[in-house]
Amino acid sequence: MGTISNVQEGERLVGFFLVKEREVRVAANGDEYIDLLLGDETGTIPSKMWDVNDQQKAAVQRKTILKIDGTVRHFRGKKQLQINRVRIANDEDNIDIQSLVQKSTTSREELWQDLRMVIDDIQNDVYGAIIRKLFGNKEIREAFTTLPASKVMHHAYYAGLLDHVVSLCHSTLQLLAVYPHLNKDLLLTTCLLHDIGKTRTIHDAITPEYTDEGQLMGHLVMSVEMINEAAFEAGFSIQNEEVVALKHCILSQFGDADKGMGSAVSGKMPEAIFFNAIEELDAKLNALQMNKGQSEDGWQYHPMFKRKMKTDHV
Amino acid sequence: MGTISNVQEGERLVGFFLVKEREVRVAANGDEYIDLLLGDETGTIPSKMWDVNDQQKAAVQRKTILKIDGTVRHFRGKKQLQINRVRIANDEDNIDIQSLVQKSTTSREELWQDLRMVIDDIQNDVYGAIIRKLFGNKEIREAFTTLPASKVMHHAYYAGLLDHVVSLCHSTLQLLAVYPHLNKDLLLTTCLLHDIGKTRTIHDAITPEYTDEGQLMGHLVMSVEMINEAAFEAGFSIQNEEVVALKHCILSQFGDADKGMGSAVSGKMPEAIFFNAIEELDAKLNALQMNKGQSEDGWQYHPMFKRKMKTDHV
Amino acid sequence: MGTISNVQEGERLVGFFLVKEREVRVAANGDEYIDLLLGDETGTIPSKMWDVNDQQKAAVQRKTILKIDGTVRHFRGKKQLQINRVRIANDEDNIDIQSLVQKSTTSREELWQDLRMVIDDIQNDVYGAIIRKLFGNKEIREAFTTLPASKVMHHAYYAGLLDHVVSLCHSTLQLLAVYPHLNKDLLLTTCLLHDIGKTRTIHDAITPEYTDEGQLMGHLVMSVEMINEAAFEAGFSIQNEEVVALKHCILSQFGDADKGMGSAVSGKMPEAIFFNAIEELDAKLNALQMNKGQSEDGWQYHPMFKRKMKTDHV
Amino acid sequence: MGTISNVQEGERLVGFFLVKEREVRVAANGDEYIDLLLGDETGTIPSKMWDVNDQQKAAVQRKTILKIDGTVRHFRGKKQLQINRVRIANDEDNIDIQSLVQKSTTSREELWQDLRMVIDDIQNDVYGAIIRKLFGNKEIREAFTTLPASKVMHHAYYAGLLDHVVSLCHSTLQLLAVYPHLNKDLLLTTCLLHDIGKTRTIHDAITPEYTDEGQLMGHLVMSVEMINEAAFEAGFSIQNEEVVALKHCILSQFGDADKGMGSAVSGKMPEAIFFNAIEELDAKLNALQMNKGQSEDGWQYHPMFKRKMKTDHV
Amino acid sequence: MGTISNVQEGERLVGFFLVKEREVRVAANGDEYIDLLLGDETGTIPSKMWDVNDQQKAAVQRKTILKIDGTVRHFRGKKQLQINRVRIANDEDNIDIQSLVQKSTTSREELWQDLRMVIDDIQNDVYGAIIRKLFGNKEIREAFTTLPASKVMHHAYYAGLLDHVVSLCHSTLQLLAVYPHLNKDLLLTTCLLHDIGKTRTIHDAITPEYTDEGQLMGHLVMSVEMINEAAFEAGFSIQNEEVVALKHCILSQFGDADKGMGSAVSGKMPEAIFFNAIEELDAKLNALQMNKGQSEDGWQYHPMFKRKMKTDHV
Amino acid sequence: MGTISNVQEGERLVGFFLVKEREVRVAANGDEYIDLLLGDETGTIPSKMWDVNDQQKAAVQRKTILKIDGTVRHFRGKKQLQINRVRIANDEDNIDIQSLVQKSTTSREELWQDLRMVIDDIQNDVYGAIIRKLFGNKEIREAFTTLPASKVMHHAYYAGLLDHVVSLCHSTLQLLAVYPHLNKDLLLTTCLLHDIGKTRTIHDAITPEYTDEGQLMGHLVMSVEMINEAAFEAGFSIQNEEVVALKHCILSQFGDADKGMGSAVSGKMPEAIFFNAIEELDAKLNALQMNKGQSEDGWQYHPMFKRKMKTDHV
Repeated sequence: MGTISNVQEGERLVGFFLVKEREVRVAANGDEYIDLLLGDETGTIPSKMWDVNDQQKAAVQRKTILKIDGTVRHFRGKKQLQINRVRIANDEDNIDIQSLVQKSTTSREELWQDLRMVIDDIQNDVYGAIIRKLFGNKEIREAFTTLPASKVMHHAYYAGLLDHVVSLCHSTLQLLAVYPHLNKDLLLTTCLLHDIGKTRTIHDAITPEYTDEGQLMGHLVMSVEMINEAAFEAGFSIQNEEVVALKHCILSQFGDADKGMGSAVSGKMPEAIFFNAIEELDAKLNALQMNKGQSEDGWQYHPMFKRKMKTDHV
Repeated sequence: MGTISNVQEGERLVGFFLVKEREVRVAANGDEYIDLLLGDETGTIPSKMWDVNDQQKAAVQRKTILKIDGTVRHFRGKKQLQINRVRIANDEDNIDIQSLVQKSTTSREELWQDLRMVIDDIQNDVYGAIIRKLFGNKEIREAFTTLPASKVMHHAYYAGLLDHVVSLCHSTLQLLAVYPHLNKDLLLTTCLLHDIGKTRTIHDAITPEYTDEGQLMGHLVMSVEMINEAAFEAGFSIQNEEVVALKHCILSQFGDADKGMGSAVSGKMPEAIFFNAIEELDAKLNALQMNKGQSEDGWQYHPMFKRKMKTDHV
Repeated sequence: MGTISNVQEGERLVGFFLVKEREVRVAANGDEYIDLLLGDETGTIPSKMWDVNDQQKAAVQRKTILKIDGTVRHFRGKKQLQINRVRIANDEDNIDIQSLVQKSTTSREELWQDLRMVIDDIQNDVYGAIIRKLFGNKEIREAFTTLPASKVMHHAYYAGLLDHVVSLCHSTLQLLAVYPHLNKDLLLTTCLLHDIGKTRTIHDAITPEYTDEGQLMGHLVMSVEMINEAAFEAGFSIQNEEVVALKHCILSQFGDADKGMGSAVSGKMPEAIFFNAIEELDAKLNALQMNKGQSEDGWQYHPMFKRKMKTDHV
Repeated sequence: MGTISNVQEGERLVGFFLVKEREVRVAANGDEYIDLLLGDETGTIPSKMWDVNDQQKAAVQRKTILKIDGTVRHFRGKKQLQINRVRIANDEDNIDIQSLVQKSTTSREELWQDLRMVIDDIQNDVYGAIIRKLFGNKEIREAFTTLPASKVMHHAYYAGLLDHVVSLCHSTLQLLAVYPHLNKDLLLTTCLLHDIGKTRTIHDAITPEYTDEGQLMGHLVMSVEMINEAAFEAGFSIQNEEVVALKHCILSQFGDADKGMGSAVSGKMPEAIFFNAIEELDAKLNALQMNKGQSEDGWQYHPMFKRKMKTDHV
Repeated sequence: MGTISNVQEGERLVGFFLVKEREVRVAANGDEYIDLLLGDETGTIPSKMWDVNDQQKAAVQRKTILKIDGTVRHFRGKKQLQINRVRIANDEDNIDIQSLVQKSTTSREELWQDLRMVIDDIQNDVYGAIIRKLFGNKEIREAFTTLPASKVMHHAYYAGLLDHVVSLCHSTLQLLAVYPHLNKDLLLTTCLLHDIGKTRTIHDAITPEYTDEGQLMGHLVMSVEMINEAAFEAGFSIQNEEVVALKHCILSQFGDADKGMGSAVSGKMPEAIFFNAIEELDAKLNALQMNKGQSEDGWQYHPMFKRKMKTDHV
Repeated sequence: MGTISNVQEGERLVGFFLVKEREVRVAANGDEYIDLLLGDETGTIPSKMWDVNDQQKAAVQRKTILKIDGTVRHFRGKKQLQINRVRIANDEDNIDIQSLVQKSTTSREELWQDLRMVIDDIQNDVYGAIIRKLFGNKEIREAFTTLPASKVMHHAYYAGLLDHVVSLCHSTLQLLAVYPHLNKDLLLTTCLLHDIGKTRTIHDAITPEYTDEGQLMGHLVMSVEMINEAAFEAGFSIQNEEVVALKHCILSQFGDADKGMGSAVSGKMPEAIFFNAIEELDAKLNALQMNKGQSEDGWQYHPMFKRKMKTDHV
């Protein structure tokens, strides 16, 4: 059966789809309709429900699951799903909402196991205690293991944040063989907690949005705040030298502050320099990988790079 | 009697001076000497103590007060104090170290009274509680009312930080008459606490230095940390909407983050835009004022502006 | 009765509207229609007049007043007014065109009184004479008191320029209490005349456009030219020290020239630094204020800031 | 006989030299001396007059001519002239001060003849009248034909401004054969008057300094002011379309304003784009030419380019 | 007869047109249509062929010539050609494809003659040999004399590259009269070969596209590669001093490398500085000339300048 | 025995030293002396040989080995070696010049063995052939295994280039476990050859200098030229897709071209993005490592980062 990512213009598409965005509009003829962004496991496609009544307007909300029989049309430069028949999914359909969102290739469970092994590898008492406090909190753990790393840019899928963190831990462990003088526990803890604030800046793993607090504070400082809370609970001063080194690596994760990339402070320790490099690399490679196979000639415009990239090559 | 700022080349200078920096050196002839930076209430001047013995090397440290009879010479493009006679000040000299450092024009005590009146004017319970927790802490209050706002750039004198904060409060109160729709309590609290982290990033009001933690974290984030501590103690969540607004104004105090001026996040509220403008203005006007009267034609190179400025004019 | 700013999609809108832009188009079916931008006291909305004949095409021009009975529709992501009935307003309708444009909250007359009081406060003979020459010119005064300060960015409404200038005078008078060492007459004259060139760069207060000369010269240099003309008429040299200081503050009003913000020269006097700060602040706060209340969650993208801003807050 | 530019370390140098800068200093031993910058037709060299008495201090000023017998020494990375014998030149020495400054290769008189031919070639009445008013003013003509184009950067020698302008006129005339659609009279007038404001921003052709007015206004706007004065005297409006085009080309002479290169407005006409290109090229090629032959390997650091340039090549 | 550039909205347009781009689409009603970009000697216009069958879809490709009878309509802010009747051109129509593309004003043959004269003027054996090797290659010569200099920016028409190179040779020859110390043969060879790599980076003179290799290498380095091949064949080392100077001027043709304009290295020789200036000037003036006469008031937005330019003026 | 890096001010230093730079100077008293930069295995120190005769001036050249008995003095803010006794080393001293230069911690021989293993691991025929051609050339191999990677910035020591390349190969092999979809042979070949052009841009492993050709071409393009030569000799087209991919990764090694970091083209393939990240990381970490242990408090200004870095930490 077709999916959003592989269906061609003119083809029929039948199945269950998740409502990711919806807005009620009035058309030129005075009729109301619902503007939809629909999603399945492979991607998203815009659509419209015409001639909707008040009951339908109330029923079709974000995260509603719809069963649709439609055809793909070309509309102002983009594919759109023209609905022939539609109904709201019911309990008997027995659809798991998670089957309708994009996910990491490795399962969330496997990724969590990988992460556990990294945590067990950390010797430093301070870092160990902070990590246990944070991941021991059920609410934080739930958010951390389901949220995307960002809405659009990279690892923008269910459990994308976890996928990103596990990838960074692996990179660090591999490169420590080349740069053995770097502080392993500081680096791994930075990998694990560098985006922990995203559990407060991104809301909802299925239809993610940025919180007010997230937009006003930024996830770097919010990661620091959560580390401070954990350190305090674990009985360590937030001015402890090792805690400060950890916070420094997190606050400088986007590179030089004077280049305006988003760091709160410029990296001033070798570990901060190292972490910025592998974090940026992982985000970029994931962004390229996420968008592979979408053009005929292998070239595709990437907003992250602001140029055409050759994602499919020799 | 002459002072450092008004003494001319070739003139004699006699009095008590504070050792602000010192380093032992070996001259070309093999003799040891001490390289000094001396200060009085009006400024600083380099000097050298020749032919020093071990006892002198041990006695002359940072913050030592020296009685000197010397002459001002020209040496590689700058004035230097050539010492004719020198001795270490003793108890009988009865010199108060604070009489040998540059200070704000308004006394520390008056500034503190001004600040108290501003605090009394704040209605908001959350902000009021946080301010009382912080200024109620004797150690913080002591640092806050004696430290400079920076080592070199602006308000670089004893109690300069307090002077800067009081000036910002006055600017805010005056401009609220023009922009009455802005949130007064949020603005005044931002003025009061925007640099509170400097009490942890700058060490020693007499011979100030930046702490390791300060260089690794930056005073913006450290101000936020101190506010969080105070909010927690006062029984407010650090995610409280008003606390978040306050922290936002502080984290964006240097303007747009993507311009690389040092903000942790770009200002996104009118109060943040307002505070950035008056903070930058006060720093610039103070920097120009601090360096007035130092050139013959009224023009002088300013590192903050990276150009010659006309500080004495029509 | 509904207005452009508060009407909702699907609602009816009846009243008089000003034609702010119009263009005759040919539709896909070969019929001609007029593309309109309509305005009332609260804002603007696009519309279309279909099946127009030659007489209508000739009659409906910029500044024509139309009486319309229409319904608001959603069209390509924006509201549009669908016309049910339309006619051109006649003398009996007795509509004042000024009642159909956005205006400053304070009336033009009150603003002018405020300005007069500021002018009376200026002691300096040179500045006083230049101001009287310029505001004594009826044509300049008429333009100065009706034009917007810009077409889109800030104070983009009838008498917006006057509103902006009065606001700057108030800011200056208030802040002089904090910075009494600044030259009051120089600052107030800069406030009054910094945009005087806009009377030659912007044409027509109702449907404003930039003149050719304005685009080729910029309003900074044109303000200087008008000041020179006035100084010459008043018998002062354009190289007079006070005139030069005034022109310097105007030419540097957008901040450092090497940052490419539009200044002709970088500010090199404390007054120039001061004026740049308050001018930029007033423009930003007005831009935020102008766009308040237009989104549900209080966040809105602002072209001036190139990011989403939280204009409605705690 | 040796000259400043060709004398080697260790060699003797005897002759008349012009005092270009001087300052009285006090040495470590308490003696006063005069710090000098001496010049001849080929360049400049620092020197010191030791043990000077009050009479000598009074007599040796900027523009004083000294007869010196000295030896060239190496002092802190630079050549310095060590004076063995010195006296102030007297009338009998019969030294023309102009023989002691660097000059253009073509004589001032020939350059002026070239310029006259260009002026005669201009057909446009408005431009012709403005040019005649300005060059008809004796004071302006005297300054224009003797000043350097800048103190250090390019054409930094006696009559350098005239040399630069003549070179630009020649470039324009040559390139009009390639781009015949450009407005010849507009371009030539721009060449002739683009730096006319420098007659007010630079003071003294022999020991040039920037005036206060020049630093506060910039020579672009001052050129416009002088053109306005001339247009007014000649009976043309300063808003005349041709006058505006001329002023536009002058105000945009340093390229795009938003790149912060110093233009008051960005070039928006083909002639403005053209003039910026040839002006920048002439300045750069002259800067390279001025510094030719000063290093052994043909490579030399250039402040204008901020890198090493290969000025002597294949 | 009407042409694409002079036809007005509502008018009929009849003639032969070249298919420059085409894509098959599915409309909202399920029908297939072909989206077209049509061109003639004066410009391009979008169009749509409705209700196309499989045979038509196969027949209408890039470079197909269509005979169309249509009417110009306004569609989403742009002109569009609404087709009334259409057929594919046949042999009897006897249409030369080159008559349907934009071309340089001077004919390709004349430009080539101009170029030959420049080549004959070069004395230097090394440069002469390299030029002969490259232009002696029939494939290179064919591409060089038919390709545009770029797809959109400047000289974006048939033989535009040749037109650009000839223009640069003329500029150089003219300016050598002003700067006779520059190396004539180096400059002319740089003009001739600076874009020779474009014969490998741009594919097809009629419907030009960038090659994969071109996007991965850039035409600067590819020009250097072709020069190396020619030098090798001609028996000269690629490290030969004159060959290196030539490659330097080509690699630095876009100005300072640290400004990110696209140069591989910053210009470090006077000839490199010179070439960058005339190349940029020629590209800009051509871009302005290409877009002349397209707006009513003479002002038009230019993507190369990122602002409105006044292309039709006094 | 003391070495340059561990000797303290006032201490005696005796041993053999390499002359790295020398220049004959004339002192204020007229005597000639030689300004020296001396080096041993641990670093460099300036010195002066006084009262030198013609024979000494001729004998003491770059790379001369001197035996010196001296004392370390403080001179204008830096250590300097004051010579008590000095003679030129003779054959009997039997000093190997390589024992007097800084070197990689791993021996050149071991590094070469590592590199050989990487080469043997490459499967791709094209890349294998190019690598064998280049490293099979004795002259290239000799330069490649002895030169520093740069004069000052990073890996600035004997065999530093080889050290850098081996480190990059290790990083790549380690990270391929995390990013297995990347092209291993392309990445390893890029590591091996990305700086191969430095064998032509840097001259002399003992006292390295940049060649004229290197400054005019840059090592990126010169690496491409050498790869082209090798591909040609090995019978592959320089337009071969795999050769182009390799050259692309090399030309984009410094990141985005439009940021002006020195790349000839922006990276457009995942492998180019990857290589830029690990190359920059290795350079930065090495720069930090090279300068470790030189300050008391662990903080030190780094020209590469343009800020103080904390190189010695928790």
